[in-house]
Amino acid sequence: MTALRDTRVTVVGLGLMGGSLVAALKTNHACREVIGVARREATVAAALERAMIDHGTCDLAAGVGSADVVVLATPVRVILAQLAEIGPLLPPGCLLMDLGSTKAQIVAAMNRLPPHIQPLGGHPMGGKETSGLAAAEPDLYQGQVFVLTPLPRTSPEALALGRALVEAVGAHPLVLEAERHDRLAAAVSHLPYLLACGLVGMAGELGQDDTLWQLAASGFRDTSRLAASNVTMMLDILLTNQEAALEALEACEAQLRHLARLIESGDEEGLRTVLTAIRDSRVNVMRVPFTQYATRNTFPMSEVK
Amino acid sequence: MTALRDTRVTVVGLGLMGGSLVAALKTNHACREVIGVARREATVAAALERAMIDHGTCDLAAGVGSADVVVLATPVRVILAQLAEIGPLLPPGCLLMDLGSTKAQIVAAMNRLPPHIQPLGGHPMGGKETSGLAAAEPDLYQGQVFVLTPLPRTSPEALALGRALVEAVGAHPLVLEAERHDRLAAAVSHLPYLLACGLVGMAGELGQDDTLWQLAASGFRDTSRLAASNVTMMLDILLTNQEAALEALEACEAQLRHLARLIESGDEEGLRTVLTAIRDSRVNVMRVPFTQYATRNTFPMSEVK
Repeated sequence: MTALRDTRVTVVGLGLMGGSLVAALKTNHACREVIGVARREATVAAALERAMIDHGTCDLAAGVGSADVVVLATPVRVILAQLAEIGPLLPPGCLLMDLGSTKAQIVAAMNRLPPHIQPLGGHPMGGKETSGLAAAEPDLYQGQVFVLTPLPRTSPEALALGRALVEAVGAHPLVLEAERHDRLAAAVSHLPYLLACGLVGMAGELGQDDTLWQLAASGFRDTSRLAASNVTMMLDILLTNQEAALEALEACEAQLRHLARLIESGDEEGLRTVLTAIRDSRVNVMRVPFTQYATRNTFPMSEVK
Repeated sequence: MTALRDTRVTVVGLGLMGGSLVAALKTNHACREVIGVARREATVAAALERAMIDHGTCDLAAGVGSADVVVLATPVRVILAQLAEIGPLLPPGCLLMDLGSTKAQIVAAMNRLPPHIQPLGGHPMGGKETSGLAAAEPDLYQGQVFVLTPLPRTSPEALALGRALVEAVGAHPLVLEAERHDRLAAAVSHLPYLLACGLVGMAGELGQDDTLWQLAASGFRDTSRLAASNVTMMLDILLTNQEAALEALEACEAQLRHLARLIESGDEEGLRTVLTAIRDSRVNVMRVPFTQYATRNTFPMSEVK
């Protein structure tokens, strides 16, 4: 397979993630040519004006027809729809990647692609709360963990090319099996969103006057932050990862019920034991702050397939 | 009652909150004399060396015997113990305040004080994750909401003096009934702590290898931050506000179960409606970031008794 620097890369979807990807590829001169595909002409024009792409189009077939690498950077359920029709449009041997937040359904759809295509699931574990091309920036992927979920049919060369692309934008590739990604992402990402929503929903019921909000300090602000996430994106995630999200929520509810029983019975020593273990766990895990963790050069690259 | 600038103020407990209070009073020349009472001689010596107090002692009776204002800045259940014995030590007309995180039990104990004392509950709604005198700073209270919970026996003059003290350290007084404070604090403070603990406890069960933590990004970090709070302080809070904390948790669990049902049934429109309302609520409430909210001059001071 071609080296990344000799490839033509097409990114489909020029929002925050897709726009940042083309910008990083261009800025780092990572490949021969960067093509952007967007739904709206204005988005293509803006990406061209910011010199984030070499060429752009609203025509999917034209954009991907001669690409060596295609990256679907649209919402999860749009990716699922695109996977059902993009096969015949791609040239033989094309590496087809995506940036979707859940992986099991996408990988299953990738497995139904014509055999001349090399599929590789992907999920960069970062982002920002803003969205759209205007928020895109070439440094977005810098230091991020970028999960790759290869299929049994994915060739070692295709995986190597996908890895090279991830590293070219400054991210750290982490190879995971798709179902495992979804289960872990449910725990560290989808569950925190649901808890933030539960908190804001509960407070909203009480907060009919302003006094409640005047008492809310930084603890409430941080714990509830994710409740402001983009709803369409979260619906996409929750509805394509229902089982794992519900399992994570159930496991968390069991923890909360245990805490409630200890509080109710006034079992101080029992409560102290549980809360201390939780505190130690949080402190140990977060000893290296995430930003630092994610950008330091010695990032521990365990690879679990 | 004397004006604040003519008073001798004694603060009992020179940790983060008490130490910051004496430092702010001294820095702002808010009163005639600042006395610090600590458990350990070394703490008194450190406060004297940093010129945070005029005099210091480990002897409670000596420290409070001629004070015009006494502020108990110890943990909630230490305050409860001190309230049971401090009465006879205080001079007639003394204003006795506290900084405890829960108020109903403290106010009930204050009501049992001898009649020659003017009691006034207090709770500054901020702080830091660090603790101890070393972390104390005169600016800690700047811009914070500082709840005051007067008793029916508290005179208007005593309340006015308490208010003056709060304002002298840069905080915004907010008068609330004690039970109401506890109910609202359970929702915006104690519940977020419990949710963070549930999240970390649940993730800890899954996170036996490092992969889970590699996937955790800023969303997990923020949502779980409070789980690293001081356990002894949180035990104090949860065990003196059991009923309200459990009610808040139960109301939140009802919200979570509702979300789970919508996810399970794949009811996209129902889920979108709920998540959008929650998102709007979070965005509206937080439109003015809290830091800004808390420090801008036009802070809206509603007072609900």
